Amino acid sequence: MYSVILVRHGESVYNQQNLFTGWTDVALTERGIHEAREAGHLIREAGYTFDMAFSSVLKRSIQTMHYILDELDLLWIPEQKAWKLNERHYGALQGLSKTDTANKYGEEQLHLWRRSLTVRPPLLKPDDPRSPRIEERYKGIHEHDLPLGESLQDTVARVGDFWHHRIVPLIRKKERILISAHGNTLRALIKYMEDIDEKTLTDLNIPTGIPLVYELDEHVQPIRRFYLGEQEHIDRKSAEVADQGNVTE
Amino acid sequence: MYSVILVRHGESVYNQQNLFTGWTDVALTERGIHEAREAGHLIREAGYTFDMAFSSVLKRSIQTMHYILDELDLLWIPEQKAWKLNERHYGALQGLSKTDTANKYGEEQLHLWRRSLTVRPPLLKPDDPRSPRIEERYKGIHEHDLPLGESLQDTVARVGDFWHHRIVPLIRKKERILISAHGNTLRALIKYMEDIDEKTLTDLNIPTGIPLVYELDEHVQPIRRFYLGEQEHIDRKSAEVADQGNVTE
Repeated sequence: MYSVILVRHGESVYNQQNLFTGWTDVALTERGIHEAREAGHLIREAGYTFDMAFSSVLKRSIQTMHYILDELDLLWIPEQKAWKLNERHYGALQGLSKTDTANKYGEEQLHLWRRSLTVRPPLLKPDDPRSPRIEERYKGIHEHDLPLGESLQDTVARVGDFWHHRIVPLIRKKERILISAHGNTLRALIKYMEDIDEKTLTDLNIPTGIPLVYELDEHVQPIRRFYLGEQEHIDRKSAEVADQGNVTE
Repeated sequence: MYSVILVRHGESVYNQQNLFTGWTDVALTERGIHEAREAGHLIREAGYTFDMAFSSVLKRSIQTMHYILDELDLLWIPEQKAWKLNERHYGALQGLSKTDTANKYGEEQLHLWRRSLTVRPPLLKPDDPRSPRIEERYKGIHEHDLPLGESLQDTVARVGDFWHHRIVPLIRKKERILISAHGNTLRALIKYMEDIDEKTLTDLNIPTGIPLVYELDEHVQPIRRFYLGEQEHIDRKSAEVADQGNVTE
């Protein structure tokens, strides 16, 4: 039997301001740091350990991974920072407030961008200063692989590639893995473990900073999944995410 | 032309208490964290950047690397944590105070352990709780490669292996590299770049938290080397290390 633990990063500077974040590389707030340390604490209390850790190449996910590993006294394990675990790319919406977007395009369009599986946001121009195609961080990656805006389905596809080719082979070698990532990339990972339908996928909200443990059978199919911590705490964090309409996008 | 930047980690909890540290995995103090951030600040001010970062598997070196990368907004670059960059293993002296060691074994023996090239400290027993052979962190490494106490020459040999096989090939590919490590492992790296004699090697004291830039020619031989920062600051930090007799061992 295998296991993997997923953690969604906590509050970032953009979340605080209710701005579309996507691939914008913003830091955690003090509250976000506290959420990451708390996640590490819960994992330690539950007696889990890791052989390897994954994050995206965005600092809110990297910092979350580091705070968790520090709490577990596991800063020394190998880590990989992968762009394929980046949050959904929100195209030209990145940096706009959700209120401004609603005023400009209407609530219905905003809802579609945020909750549809296949609708893409307005794309960035390839030479936009926010374009990953001109950022040092993404050099060496084929231009056509780098999105200028993604539907949830686009994100799910590239996460699937990483999951099947990079993470599953390690799980099969009994490596105990931590994945520190983002709301939409964790949804995607859950889709690959559990065979969920479109509605379940688009409605799925993962609370921030609460470790989600998957116990997997020999086919890497879930036997059991559960959040760590006290039920009251989990419920409160889940309610927060639902209320805020998934603000950490 | 190539370049590489070396940084010696700053004050740890054991340094503060004047204890032999070696492979004991102690954290940075608040002062050590400040030294790491200051190193990152100096590198940023001087306009350097990196493609990859190396540290040992000891948290004082890993934390120093992370603080530097955070200051440079480079948390996303690949990093490798390598046991071959660990501090010299101080065997059964680890955890003893330098004063107690002097009282027990005499000043002359203490000086020999600390300043000779070839004399080893008293070795750990293989089943000592401090032995790397029973530590999870070093599993997968051949038992005979894991020291129970090292002379400076032993340390220099294993660092050489890592330098030639792992770091030099990357430098030749024009990768810009940060190495966050320890007093004795940085001495070893300097020995491989500059052809220094035994006396120079054993007398070499590198100040903590001051980035040391090496500019290298096509044969990976130094053209120029210099510390970053104001001369007055460099002099003060160098004097501190000389006064304290290399306390960060």
